[in-house]
Amino acid sequence: MNAIGVDVGGTKIAAGVVTPEGKILDEVRYPTPHSPEKLVEAIAGAVSEVGDGPEVGGVCLAVPGLILAQENKVIFSPNLHAVEGIPLKDELEPKIGLPLTIENDGNAAAWGEFRFGVGSEVDHLVFITLGTGIGAGVITHGVLMRGAQGSGGELGHVTVQATGPRCACGNRGCLEALASGTAIGRRAREAAIEHPDSALGRLAAKRRVLGEDVTELAREGDELALSVLEETGTWLGVGLAGFVNIFNPEIVAVGGGVMEAGELILKAARREVMLRARPPSRDLAEIKVATLGPKSGVLGAAALARDAFTGEYVLGG
Amino acid sequence: MNAIGVDVGGTKIAAGVVTPEGKILDEVRYPTPHSPEKLVEAIAGAVSEVGDGPEVGGVCLAVPGLILAQENKVIFSPNLHAVEGIPLKDELEPKIGLPLTIENDGNAAAWGEFRFGVGSEVDHLVFITLGTGIGAGVITHGVLMRGAQGSGGELGHVTVQATGPRCACGNRGCLEALASGTAIGRRAREAAIEHPDSALGRLAAKRRVLGEDVTELAREGDELALSVLEETGTWLGVGLAGFVNIFNPEIVAVGGGVMEAGELILKAARREVMLRARPPSRDLAEIKVATLGPKSGVLGAAALARDAFTGEYVLGG
Repeated sequence: MNAIGVDVGGTKIAAGVVTPEGKILDEVRYPTPHSPEKLVEAIAGAVSEVGDGPEVGGVCLAVPGLILAQENKVIFSPNLHAVEGIPLKDELEPKIGLPLTIENDGNAAAWGEFRFGVGSEVDHLVFITLGTGIGAGVITHGVLMRGAQGSGGELGHVTVQATGPRCACGNRGCLEALASGTAIGRRAREAAIEHPDSALGRLAAKRRVLGEDVTELAREGDELALSVLEETGTWLGVGLAGFVNIFNPEIVAVGGGVMEAGELILKAARREVMLRARPPSRDLAEIKVATLGPKSGVLGAAALARDAFTGEYVLGG
Repeated sequence: MNAIGVDVGGTKIAAGVVTPEGKILDEVRYPTPHSPEKLVEAIAGAVSEVGDGPEVGGVCLAVPGLILAQENKVIFSPNLHAVEGIPLKDELEPKIGLPLTIENDGNAAAWGEFRFGVGSEVDHLVFITLGTGIGAGVITHGVLMRGAQGSGGELGHVTVQATGPRCACGNRGCLEALASGTAIGRRAREAAIEHPDSALGRLAAKRRVLGEDVTELAREGDELALSVLEETGTWLGVGLAGFVNIFNPEIVAVGGGVMEAGELILKAARREVMLRARPPSRDLAEIKVATLGPKSGVLGAAALARDAFTGEYVLGG
């Protein structure tokens, strides 16, 4: 049975029909409208477009934000307020004529990597995606760890330095405040002020420095940019060490735009995990770049739809 | 089918025959020998003693330290080095004539609270025990979260303040370094130095202040002792908030000797969880004192033995 995965992002909606083997047969992308009515319309349109051809058994929406699974709705979504509070299942099912389920985008992407990507050979996977914020999902004993309300796996807002910098969520010292793309940008702008004659400093004199700029300069060998990424990797490692102690996973996969920097961040993260995590967990866990890239959302959501509606996999629920 | 649970602690071994309903029929306690040979002998002796009467289907040892499940052994046990590296299953099964399994003591106690105690009505339970150190175990989707090697659920060594005080494990800022009984003692001795005329200060002039002393003074209304417990509760809350975000549990149960202080610690912990955890998880999670007390280890281990050898419950493995 094929299934449709829809990755509802802050800027675009991607919908794809996916085979049981994880092949995307057809895919469309639309910009994300930011009114609730137009958002529902756009999702229904995208699903109809790809679902027209091959036999499809169900749809799963991967949505950013905190899910209340019992009510099939998103209660909080900082980057896509339009999705908050809408009874997505009730509104969309009649329009698309297919059974629908919803999932947090981090959980969906984790399930994608577990079924078709970096975690396809293991039963215990921690997946974390570093972008503007931090998304995540955990598979433990082969089960997607949703928690009681579908809101589990929120690893980005675990505190790693209680007195640390302010996070977008309002708290201090969340992993997201220390190891996201946003944190890299903040750290780079601070470094630019301290070192006005550096490449980062000269760039900052012209325009706002972003996380991407740091990776680009680091790749050119710039020492200051490299040190910003290393510090970020160390903080990432503090968080990952905790997750290694908690989950005793076989693989910790890191994805998201920040992974353009790959080993420039992961090397420091691994070093910190070796310091902070405990044996045997720390010696088992491989810390790797995720392999599906931006397709993990569509692939994971489609697999979740199929798994939910066929019962092929046991899903935590 | 009855089963035997053995709680192998740093100072004593408790063994009990337990019914499927969680009733302890017979129980013995011995001091823990600290040579490997005598330890194995003492465990075998305790099992024979209680296992003599009623029909028994299996044994589970709850042991302190990090487990390597594939080899049925403990690889690291800071408070009971005698147990490290012994092939407990191979050595004990011939002596006791019953199938045997081993489990981390925090995981076993969590399973006890899940089957017979504070978590018996829920599917998602985080259990944490505050004593000299911090033990823990997590049940998610009704499954004991062991991780790939049986070493999962090590919540005490999750970093909550990366630059914080040194932990017994060698790192800085583990939850254990900030919210264990040992941390209370350290904090109280620091407070005593700052306030030599306080009750804590006067006690410190006579002898080394311990965590227990703080609870006793706080119960008598001593302001400084109360503030030490409140600070400890706040740090506990930083950790618990992370676990609430990660697991989206219905109940977070706190046990161990430190819970003599009960609400004097938990009130501050709840306040911090409300600040740091995210909805809907933070609004669902009830933070409570565990109900089985020191019996959770024997009860949980016995239930694990029965569940492992009858397949009555799905155990993460």
